[in-house]
Amino acid sequence: MSVLELSPADQYVVVSGDTPLAEVYAALPEGLYPPFPPVELPGGVGGLVERGGFGQTYFFPADVLGLTFETPSGRRISAGGRVVKNVQGYDLVRPFVGSFGWLGRALEVVLRLRPARAAALWRYRRAGEVRPRFVWEAEGERLAFHYGHPRELARAGFDEALALEGPLDYRPWFPHGMGPAEEGPLRDDRWAWADGAPPPEPDAVFARIARALDGGGA
Amino acid sequence: MSVLELSPADQYVVVSGDTPLAEVYAALPEGLYPPFPPVELPGGVGGLVERGGFGQTYFFPADVLGLTFETPSGRRISAGGRVVKNVQGYDLVRPFVGSFGWLGRALEVVLRLRPARAAALWRYRRAGEVRPRFVWEAEGERLAFHYGHPRELARAGFDEALALEGPLDYRPWFPHGMGPAEEGPLRDDRWAWADGAPPPEPDAVFARIARALDGGGA
Repeated sequence: MSVLELSPADQYVVVSGDTPLAEVYAALPEGLYPPFPPVELPGGVGGLVERGGFGQTYFFPADVLGLTFETPSGRRISAGGRVVKNVQGYDLVRPFVGSFGWLGRALEVVLRLRPARAAALWRYRRAGEVRPRFVWEAEGERLAFHYGHPRELARAGFDEALALEGPLDYRPWFPHGMGPAEEGPLRDDRWAWADGAPPPEPDAVFARIARALDGGGA
Repeated sequence: MSVLELSPADQYVVVSGDTPLAEVYAALPEGLYPPFPPVELPGGVGGLVERGGFGQTYFFPADVLGLTFETPSGRRISAGGRVVKNVQGYDLVRPFVGSFGWLGRALEVVLRLRPARAAALWRYRRAGEVRPRFVWEAEGERLAFHYGHPRELARAGFDEALALEGPLDYRPWFPHGMGPAEEGPLRDDRWAWADGAPPPEPDAVFARIARALDGGGA
């Protein structure tokens, strides 16, 4: 299982939860980009979504248009749709994004794609007038990835001399899984990411939702 | 109760759920805009959030940074925070946005504000290269509202000759409440809005979440 459906016209892709991020990049036609940078992380797209994304400087959950997940006790739940317009009301997708496995595991994910004429991955030395879509630190080095209009890249701080080739494979840094922590080899706007770090404890209300989805009633 | 806290520096405003939309506009300093156009709708900010926004052409739930709501049986639940960066993981805010009262009523809402140097409300005749942030139809007439860089307004289709003064008060059209329908005097990208139209029926999973938040356990 991997890329299950791709619609360049409606700008979405459906993938199985275990699809490596690099496979999504490889499957997309030129000029369409997924909501993550060209890196490889533990757990593929499902892991990414359960952790709430990586490196984004915008609201990542909006780019998860739909998903099917399996709760800890094996119940299957589908939520959302395939197009941006369908994302309205009774939103069960967004609580799953960033739920760190408490609601279950993603089996299938519908990601929004965005069109762009240019993209670049580079060592990030200089902030521009445009914030790159993705910014992170890897073993102390700041990196950025941006896609958009060609003129936008320079305004986002892109410098040809600092360009890198993706994908960057960070999986070997996390043999026991990637979790949020105070310190770690990776860092983004939200957290540092450390090997084997446990998920944050959910509050009582979120825990109640997790139990309700997993267990009780029909 | 109305505008409870305003932070131009951190770009958020905290209001009580019953605050009229026009009061939010009146309270904001020049150059900061809320995530709704200069209109008045039933139920104030709480009603707007429960219906999932109005007229937006982007992902509205991302602009609700936090909220406190009261479930049907009177339990108070707080979720989210005050700044964009806090919006991460264990997301209870987004399922409330667009929940049409099934999860309860909004008591307090934290809205993201956006800076802009220019704004305009106008009769929308001509699509530009930039999609206005808000587009809707009122009794058959298409209207648009956009804020951003002054140059952006023309690119969004703004025409001085078609400019309007806000706020437009639509409350008299909905004496029995504003609900989604096939036909109605207002229409946006998501639905037509009709007087007294009931909320859409939630599916079994969302209904289970509503019961879990309202009732069972601590």
